[in-house]
Formats: sequence, structure tokens, C-alpha cells
Amino acid sequence: MSERGKLLVISGPSGAGKSTVVAKAIEGRTDICFSTSVTTRSPRPGEVHGREYFFVNFERFREMVENDELLEHAEYVANRYGTPRSYVEKRLDEGMNVLLDIEVQGARQVRKKMPEAILIFIAPPSLVELERRLRGRGTDTERAIEGRLIRARQEYQEADFYDYLIVNDDVDKAAAKLNAIIEAEHCRFGDWANWLKSN
Amino acid sequence: MSERGKLLVISGPSGAGKSTVVAKAIEGRTDICFSTSVTTRSPRPGEVHGREYFFVNFERFREMVENDELLEHAEYVANRYGTPRSYVEKRLDEGMNVLLDIEVQGARQVRKKMPEAILIFIAPPSLVELERRLRGRGTDTERAIEGRLIRARQEYQEADFYDYLIVNDDVDKAAAKLNAIIEAEHCRFGDWANWLKSN
Repeated sequence: MSERGKLLVISGPSGAGKSTVVAKAIEGRTDICFSTSVTTRSPRPGEVHGREYFFVNFERFREMVENDELLEHAEYVANRYGTPRSYVEKRLDEGMNVLLDIEVQGARQVRKKMPEAILIFIAPPSLVELERRLRGRGTDTERAIEGRLIRARQEYQEADFYDYLIVNDDVDKAAAKLNAIIEAEHCRFGDWANWLKSN
Repeated sequence: MSERGKLLVISGPSGAGKSTVVAKAIEGRTDICFSTSVTTRSPRPGEVHGREYFFVNFERFREMVENDELLEHAEYVANRYGTPRSYVEKRLDEGMNVLLDIEVQGARQVRKKMPEAILIFIAPPSLVELERRLRGRGTDTERAIEGRLIRARQEYQEADFYDYLIVNDDVDKAAAKLNAIIEAEHCRFGDWANWLKSN
């Protein structure tokens, strides 16, 4: 059976250690890739169309939204970003598991357009710990930290449609959980309907 | 958070290698136990009430059925067997993952009485391979083998309400999949509602 990949949507507040957990989990795996986003922002020196981003103009972006070519899209610093459905579908058909690192609002759009997507929320052990980590970084102002904490609390409240929650109290364990989720999802009964029919 | 265990219902045709896969998966784990069944059959020498089985008479068994004290029950060689709900609940509350090795009809009863149970079907790579394994054992008559194959095919058809299918083409890989499913299920978002509220 040539198995289709899974679309994995990963969200979590800044400071939850999401990128570290994901990097650890996919280390050495050749069956997982990040999706490539579409953006209206200009390429920076060295950036290649189709590698870092698909670079398009505002008109083309608007057209993609109207034609339902994007699984989700958002605006950030006066530019638009989105996930191209056709690109994701192509990678999934090739058997790749595709990762999307997006916010809760984007995940909600993906859930609607591709209900089979697997939604995973990575959280710090507690808001107290999140605050400690944000302060530890030393990169944010007091106001920025407070803003992030308010946002994190809000995200928790809104994230009730996610399939999985990984509490990142230990990076290795959290990464193992992420891999377990991917492996388990590949055993989902529905995926095996064809196998059953052939038996 | 003191986490509740999961009820894991494992089914699969004779010859799928179910017991080997389960034994391999739970090796060295102290967080998984088998459930203890209730039966009307007499204890054999050395069997202890509450260890191999809870031994009861037919009247008490009937009463358990009527009082909805069993998660599932079946008849086998003129005796009755069932899974006591209170025992399972107690182990789950203690944080143990509880395994039930039962047939598809029993699994269907469990799904109704405890919808949160996780239903896993372990299958051989194909019916052709199953036939080869059954013949390889050399323990069954030709008629018995044919009966098992017919039954396996029937079980496949009926098993469409299971959550997961593990195709056992390699015992180590199949055991790893079973453990991944258990780990993933412990990350299910719903379980974390209390955690979210406390944050």
C-alpha cells in the first residue's frame, strides 16, 4: 500500500518550545517536511521562490483566496501569508507528512477545509513557567511579555478543537510524543478501508 | 495531574500474532495490565479467584448482566465470560492502562458502554499470509483452517468501528505501533480540559 501522508498542524504560544520540539522530532526523518507558504512580501537576498516561500503579488494572492486555493491565510505586518492547498496535497500524495506551524485562527481554517488534518497544540507546563521562560530569554520588554501571556491564555481558551495537546516539560519526551502521534495516526482504521477490501 | 488510564480493546483473528505483539509491547511496562474476567466455569487447580478470573455462579452472572455490571459478555463452551465494569474502572482510576483481549462482538458492546475505550484491531498482512501461518502451526485440521479464514474475513467486515488497525507484518514494528497509539491517546486534547482550566 502506498500510504498518503498526514497534514500536521502545530500551534502553541511563543515560549512553549514548539520549534525545538518539532526540530527534535523530525531529526533524521525523511518522511516529514514543512509546507511552503505563499506570501506577498518581497523576497530577501538569497531567498528562492518555491523554497522559502512562493512569492506572489497582492492580486494573485487575492485570486488564490477567491478560488479557494489556500488552506488558511493571515495578515502580518501589512503582508499576506497563506498555505497553498495544491502544494500540500501534492506532498501528501507523495507520502510525505506535511507540517504547518500556524496560529490557532489558521488551524481553525485548516480544520474546515481539510477535516482530516491532525491538530496538535504544544504548551508550556504552565503559564507561570511560560512567564519564566519569556523573562529568561531577555529579549522582550515587560509589556511584550505581558502581551504574550495574555495571548497565550486566550489561545488556550480557543484551542479546544485541537486533537492533541503536548505539554512540553521535557523536550525529548515532547518530541517522542509528537512522533507517537504521527505513528498512531498512520494506524487510523479509516485509512485501511482499501486494505480491508483487498483481503 | 494524576492521569486516568485508558481502556484498550484488542481484537484480531487467530493467527494474526496478537498475543505476541501485545506481550512485546507491554514488556517492562508497569502502567499496563490485563483486565480480569468474570466466568461461570469452575476454577482449575491452582487458579485463584480475582487473579485468573472472578469465579461466580450462573445466578450471580445473570444478575451482573441485569445490573449492567459488565462491559461485555459472551458465551463459550456452555459457560459465560464477561468484563466487570467496576474492576476496570478501579484500575483506570489508579492510572493503569487496561487491556481487553476480546472478539469483535464484545468490542462492539464495550464501545457502547464505554465510548472512550480505544479499539485496536491487529491483522495479519493478508488472508493469504494468515492461511500460511495457520498451516505452519500444524495444529488445525483443514476444516478448522477454512473455518478460521471464513471467520477472519467476516471479522474484517465487521470491524469498521475500530479506531486503529495494526497490520502485523513485523512483531517489533507492530508492538511499537501499539505503544505509539497508547502514548498518542494520552495526549488527546479532551483529557487536558482540567489542565487548561488551571492555566
